Formats: sequence, C-alpha cells, structure tokens
Amino acid sequence: MAKQKKMVEDITSMEVDFAKWYTDICKKAELVSYTSVKGCMVIRPYGYAIWENIQSILDGHFKETGHENVNMPMFIPESLLNKEKDHVEGFAPEVAWVTMGGSEPLEERLCVRPTSETLFCDHWKDIVQSYRDLPKLYNQWVSVVRWEKTTRPFLRSREFLWQEGHTLHATAEEAIAETEQMLNIYADFCEQDLAMPVVRGKKTESDKFAGAEATYAIEALMHDGKALQAGTSHYFGDGFAKAFEIQFQNKENKLQAPFETSWGVTTRLIGAIIMTHGDDNGLCLPPAVAPIQAVIIPVAMHKEGVLEKAAELRDRLKAAGVRVKLDDSDQSPGWKFSEYEMKGVPVRIEVGPRDIEQNQCVLVTRHNREKTFVSLDDLETAVPEKLQEVRDGMYRNALENRENKTYRCKTIDEIKTALEEKGDGFVHAMWCESEECEEKVKEETGAGSRCIPFAQETVSDVCVCCGKPARTMVLWGKAY
Amino acid sequence: MAKQKKMVEDITSMEVDFAKWYTDICKKAELVSYTSVKGCMVIRPYGYAIWENIQSILDGHFKETGHENVNMPMFIPESLLNKEKDHVEGFAPEVAWVTMGGSEPLEERLCVRPTSETLFCDHWKDIVQSYRDLPKLYNQWVSVVRWEKTTRPFLRSREFLWQEGHTLHATAEEAIAETEQMLNIYADFCEQDLAMPVVRGKKTESDKFAGAEATYAIEALMHDGKALQAGTSHYFGDGFAKAFEIQFQNKENKLQAPFETSWGVTTRLIGAIIMTHGDDNGLCLPPAVAPIQAVIIPVAMHKEGVLEKAAELRDRLKAAGVRVKLDDSDQSPGWKFSEYEMKGVPVRIEVGPRDIEQNQCVLVTRHNREKTFVSLDDLETAVPEKLQEVRDGMYRNALENRENKTYRCKTIDEIKTALEEKGDGFVHAMWCESEECEEKVKEETGAGSRCIPFAQETVSDVCVCCGKPARTMVLWGKAY
Repeated sequence: MAKQKKMVEDITSMEVDFAKWYTDICKKAELVSYTSVKGCMVIRPYGYAIWENIQSILDGHFKETGHENVNMPMFIPESLLNKEKDHVEGFAPEVAWVTMGGSEPLEERLCVRPTSETLFCDHWKDIVQSYRDLPKLYNQWVSVVRWEKTTRPFLRSREFLWQEGHTLHATAEEAIAETEQMLNIYADFCEQDLAMPVVRGKKTESDKFAGAEATYAIEALMHDGKALQAGTSHYFGDGFAKAFEIQFQNKENKLQAPFETSWGVTTRLIGAIIMTHGDDNGLCLPPAVAPIQAVIIPVAMHKEGVLEKAAELRDRLKAAGVRVKLDDSDQSPGWKFSEYEMKGVPVRIEVGPRDIEQNQCVLVTRHNREKTFVSLDDLETAVPEKLQEVRDGMYRNALENRENKTYRCKTIDEIKTALEEKGDGFVHAMWCESEECEEKVKEETGAGSRCIPFAQETVSDVCVCCGKPARTMVLWGKAY
Repeated sequence: MAKQKKMVEDITSMEVDFAKWYTDICKKAELVSYTSVKGCMVIRPYGYAIWENIQSILDGHFKETGHENVNMPMFIPESLLNKEKDHVEGFAPEVAWVTMGGSEPLEERLCVRPTSETLFCDHWKDIVQSYRDLPKLYNQWVSVVRWEKTTRPFLRSREFLWQEGHTLHATAEEAIAETEQMLNIYADFCEQDLAMPVVRGKKTESDKFAGAEATYAIEALMHDGKALQAGTSHYFGDGFAKAFEIQFQNKENKLQAPFETSWGVTTRLIGAIIMTHGDDNGLCLPPAVAPIQAVIIPVAMHKEGVLEKAAELRDRLKAAGVRVKLDDSDQSPGWKFSEYEMKGVPVRIEVGPRDIEQNQCVLVTRHNREKTFVSLDDLETAVPEKLQEVRDGMYRNALENRENKTYRCKTIDEIKTALEEKGDGFVHAMWCESEECEEKVKEETGAGSRCIPFAQETVSDVCVCCGKPARTMVLWGKAY
C-alpha cells in the first residue's frame, strides 16, 4: 500500500496545476520522453501503440471510402512552396530549412514539409489529364515539421505524426461533399472510438487554413474547459490547381482546373484523450484505442492454481479478440492496481484463490472504479460488454462535462462573467460576421472563435459584440 | 490485339537495356513518379500498397518476437551524431543539414536522420537503469535521408522508407542471438513471401556498417546477374553504449554497459521484387505482397448475366480472403490482359458466356501464362491453391536463375572468364581474409565481396587471389 500511495503522489493533481498534471501523465504513463532535440519527442511504445490503434481504425475508414495511401517526399523546394501565395505566407515563417547536402550547399534550399499540398499538386500536374483520371483520393501517414516556439507533448511539437488526405475532383460539389464526408468520419471516430464528443463546424474567414476557401473543424472541450481542435478538413476550390497549372479535359472536351481538398488529424488526438478522460489517478483510455484493454492481476499468486487459471483466462480472452495482458511479475497486487490505473487500462480483472473456488473473478472499470463479480464461464462475453459500457460511460461523462461548461451569452459582459464564475468553457454567442467583432471578443474575454457550428441555435438576435443584427452563432472558447 | 501489342512495346526489353527496362516498369506499372525534388520520388498507390503488405507481414513477425514500435525524432543534433567516432565518419558525408528554423539560423545544425542509432542510445541513456529494464526491443517504420549523388527508384534514393529495429541487451550472447534471429526473419520473409532466394552471411570487415562489430546480410541475385543486398542486421557490442554512457545495474549489482543491435529493410525490397521476377511483359508480383492477387476480366461483358456472374465471383473470393479486383471498365479484354500482366497480378480470371454455361472459368497465372479451367463451384479453394503454386513456381524460377549464375572459381582468371562468358552472377571463391586480396579481386573482376555465407563450401584450399591458405569461402558479385 505504501508503494501504491507513492505512485499516486507522483502525479500533480489536476486541480492544483492542470498543465503539470498533463505532462506528469505523459511521462509517468510512459507515453513520451523528451530528447536532445528541442521541441521534438520520443513517442514511447505505450504512446505509439495508441497511435497505431488510431491509425488502424481511421485507415480502415479511409479505404472503405475509396482512398489510397501514397508517399510523398519530405522535402519541398522553396520555389514549389512559393507557388500558392496565401499558402506560403501561412507556412514560410515556421518551416525548417535544409541548406546543405553532405558538405555542399544546396543550389536551392528545401523545407521539411509542414504540410504537402504543394507536393500533391506538383504530382497531379503530371498524372491528371482527363476526367477519367478523377477523382484522386489520396492519403499519407507521415510526420511534418513546424518550427514552433513553445512546445508541449502531443499538443504542439516541432515534429508531429499525422495523416494528410489530399483529393482532387472534377466538380466543386464533389470536392465539398468530400470535405464534409471526411469531417464526419473524424467526428464519428472521436465520438465512437475515443468517447469524446465534438462540435462540427466551419472556421471563420480569419481562422481558415492558409490557401483554403473553407476550413471545417471538429472542436472538443477538455477537462479544464479549454477547447481543442481535433481535426480539420479543407476545401480549396480550384485555387491550388490554377497556381500549379493542373488541368483536365472534362466530359465536354474542354480543359478546366479541378477542385481540391485536404484533411488531417495528428498525434494531438492523444493529448485530447488525456485531457478529456484522465483524472488524478492517471490516464483513462477509451477501449477502442487502448493498447491493453484488460489487465489480469492474479491475487495471492503463489497459491496453487492461481497463475495457471490466470493464464487460461488470458488465452481465452485473447482468442475472443480482447487485447489482454496478464501481469505475473513479482510486484504486489496493490502496486499493479495503481500502475494500470495510471496507464488507463479500461478493465482490470482480479482473480485469486477464493474467486477460483467460486468460479468467478472481479472486473473493475477504470473510469468509475466500479466492481462487478462475473462467472468465469461468461468471461468472453462479459469483458467485451464491459468495454462497451466503459466507452458509453466515458462518453456520457465527457458530454456532461461539456454541457456543464457550455454557456449561452448575449453580451461580452455575460461571457466574461460566465468564464470567471463558472470557469473556462464553450460559449455560444451570436455574431455579425465582422472580423473586428471577432477580434474584440477574443481580446476582451480571452475566448476566440472556435467554429461556426453546423448545429446552429439562436441565443439572441444581435451580435454579442456590436449589437447589430446577428448572422450566425459562433462557438467561442480558449484554445490549446 | 493491336492495343495489347502497343502496351508491350512501351517497355524496353530487358535483354536490350536492363536499366531502362527497370525504370520503364517502375513508371508504367505506376509504382513511382519523379518529383521536383532531385533524388526523391513519389511512391504511388500501387507501389505503396506493396510496401503496406510488406510492412504488415514483417510487423507481425516483429511483434510475435516481442518487439514494440516507437517513434524517434527525424532530426539529430550534430553533437549527438558526433558521439560515436566510426558512425559519424560513415554518415556525416552524406547527410542533409537543417540550418534554419523559420527565418532564424539554428544555434546547432541538425541532420535529417540517415539512421537512428544515436537517437535510440540518447533515449536509452535516460530510461535504462537496471537489468530489469532489459532487453529493450524497439522498432520504427519511418523514412531516412542519405544525400546520394546517383539515384534510382527504390534502389537508391535520397529519401527512402524503411524499418529500423534497435535493441539493447544485458549480455553479448543475447544481442548476437537477436542479430541472427532478425536476419533469419528477413531471410524467411524474402524466401516465403517474396519468393526470392537469399544467401545469408556475414559482411567482411571492410564492408561493415559504420560503428558495428559485425554486420550480417542477406544477398539476392537479380535477373541480370547482379547482387542486391536485401536486408542487414548489425551487432554493435557495447561500443555505442559506452560512447553514450548507457549503464545498467546487473544482477550482481554492478554497473555495466549493455549490448546493442540494429537491423533494417527498406523499400529497396520492391526493387528486388521487380528485378527478381519481372519480365518483358512487366512486373510479376509474389502473391503475398501483391495489392491485387487475382483480377477478374469478364469476356463479352455486354452479354446477359456476364457482369452479374463476375461480380458474384468477386464477392465470393473477397469473402474467402483473396485480394480480388473485378475490372468492368469499358476497355477491351485484350487491353486488360496486357494491363494486369504489366502490373504483375499473379492470377487472372477470365469468365465469359460460354464459361458460365459450362459452370467454369479460366485461371491464367502471370509468371508462366499457364491456363487452367476451373469449376466455378471450386473457386474459393482453386484460387488460393493457384496463388501458392505461383509462389512456388516463382521461387523455383528465381532459384534456378541463381544456380545457373553461380560459379565456383579457384583463380582470379577463372572469375574473369566465368563473368565474361556466362554473364554476371554470384561467384563462390576462397579467401585468405586479407583486405588487400579482397580489394584486388574487386579491382580485377568487378565483383566485390558480398558476404561470407553461413553455408560454407570448399572450392579449393587456397585464396583465390594470393594463393595462401584459405580461411573462408566468400560470395562475390557485382552489386546494386
């Protein structure tokens, strides 16, 4: 019990210092490790296994919807980055430049890709000629680099892992439908598999991706009331295609520029999982992406038959498709309880001599610490059912947290008061669509526009800032 | 038939110009595309799907043998690269240097990883304290950069995809066993799944990886008689650990340095597949990694019931776990035959009105163009059996090619004569183990030492070069 306490004491409480609580979990749950390279991190096996599960589920959805994976170079020549004006203005200030190859200076410097629109366009220019070549539905799983000043594990690092989908279409309608489809795939994934409710919406003009005509995003609310952008999907119109001189012969035999989209999610999702579900005992992982879904902890392991039974249960659960681990190391059960709570394993299975006598075991769910006794005969159905219960419970908790922290405000003063009295959260407030008011709300309240939700509601008739007639409801919040 | 001829004419014959034949296939089978970034390529969907299949099989073997995936930064600070003397000497001349972040020069320049030994060591230094922390069995799937002067798709490019395994062990024995285990996993994979016979052996001293105590390799013989190194596995002893000050408390409570290995295969394997199995009609893919294992081509598609039957067969094969495609596009059957031959699809299934009447279809195997009539009732067993036959046939052909081109020589003159008269190939010849003789053989014959095969044979008693007593038999050859 001493050891158990010790471990828990090691994490800063989230009430005391949320930022420190976050980095404590990243380190103690062995998700990441800092490196000699400032702003870059090692994603350790336990953290990377979460990413592998995210990849596997999303990659399946991408392929079901007709997308193919490719691999583009990691370097972009400066002249290529410069081809689309808005895009280069957005990214040039934060890229890493390669200037030497071996001991020789390069003729043209190369940036390490911060995103790959320019590379995809440069490739499509060569391979797209006819409407028969469209659509191109491509994706790649790679890392990108953005030279950030301040960095935090998963949330903001100079190099991060992501997938970037890039597609090219014969019509604007088709491209817009793709942009929406991919946003919905992200949103459904976050809600179903990460048990994290999200708001789907459109970014305001000032907050669009560099070079995009429209940016859609999903926004999630973290435990501390701050907003986190969990995924984006961009519609480019034909701007990039024109800049890169991509043309195809349409069905009417005329040359025209095609329409483009791109969409991405990153290892940031792991940060979102931590801050949506974690607590003072550590990480709390959604079953769909947990590297270990159930851990078996034998009690009174030295007693005859306990380890054998535990191993039998492990094999049965493995055969039933559960990602299961048996911890038969010589640490105490108490130490193990804390350890796997810290690591956020959704279900703990305790089995000791008395349980075995009664042909049962104990299931403890991480997110609420509830205990259930289950007949060993029913294990293969009981554990998957429990995992579903865990996902549903985690989703309900996150949704409740979000609803408790969503404020409807009619004036800037109401926003200030709500955020001060109830703490950070989402604000629903009306907007006249002027950039000036958007800026002013952010300046005065600290809450910027997160998105214009697809699901609109009428909080009042006038802009929260200027009092002129309102055009849309905006979701406001302080952002990660 | 005109179109079919046309397509085939598009590829240079391998007899006429093997190098051009190779790049023709890379482009026409849509494996890669060149880019604005010199020496870097786009891996297109069909090429990338081969890599995904390679990844999936190997990753399974890595995990079965206890390895975990991680992700290290892509950058290495210059001071870190400099820590191990032999290593930096080997790699520094061919790395790409990042010198600017945004508009500011970096305090210390960073190289884009050419390989990641230094990063793994830097990480282990922080997380390994006790023998209980060992072994560390890590792997990562990433890309690396080496600033090559001359590049060719898959075989040598400035950026390439690979996996790099890195492991750390308490004893030298364990690390050596790991090095051998991973070489055997590579070799078995090449032989079973890529249908490509390989020679397993050890590199000579002069040909070791920078910083390694021993490098093991597998060597394959390409269709043109040149050798291709298909995978390597390195044993580092405790050299890196000492340079990076990694220490652990052993079971006797003493501090000691651990022992390290690393091992990797790259997208080069795709080049090896092309040059082992391809012919003048195009690519010929081993079933285990073929993106499409069987293509269904309906004949007289407009006739009633043909397309419906073809779709039914596709669904049945899909359900049976075959990667199958139905091509119901409006191209002629002849065009499709050439197209999927070019793309190396192992089995073609032809089905037309007469076949349907007789409840049969035709299976044509790509590697030997043999036709078999198969009852539609047996399709689910016939196609997988045929795929196994294809693999076996491809392996036999490749082995026969290698055996026909393996020469046993007792003198340098014999080597010269063999290579001149019979063409490039593998040479088995004895060696005294002096670097001078190794150099001289290469200079005079063009064939360098590929490896010292584990399976030794005695060609003669004396060194092929100096006539002094021989110590080992070396596999010699001209290399890619």
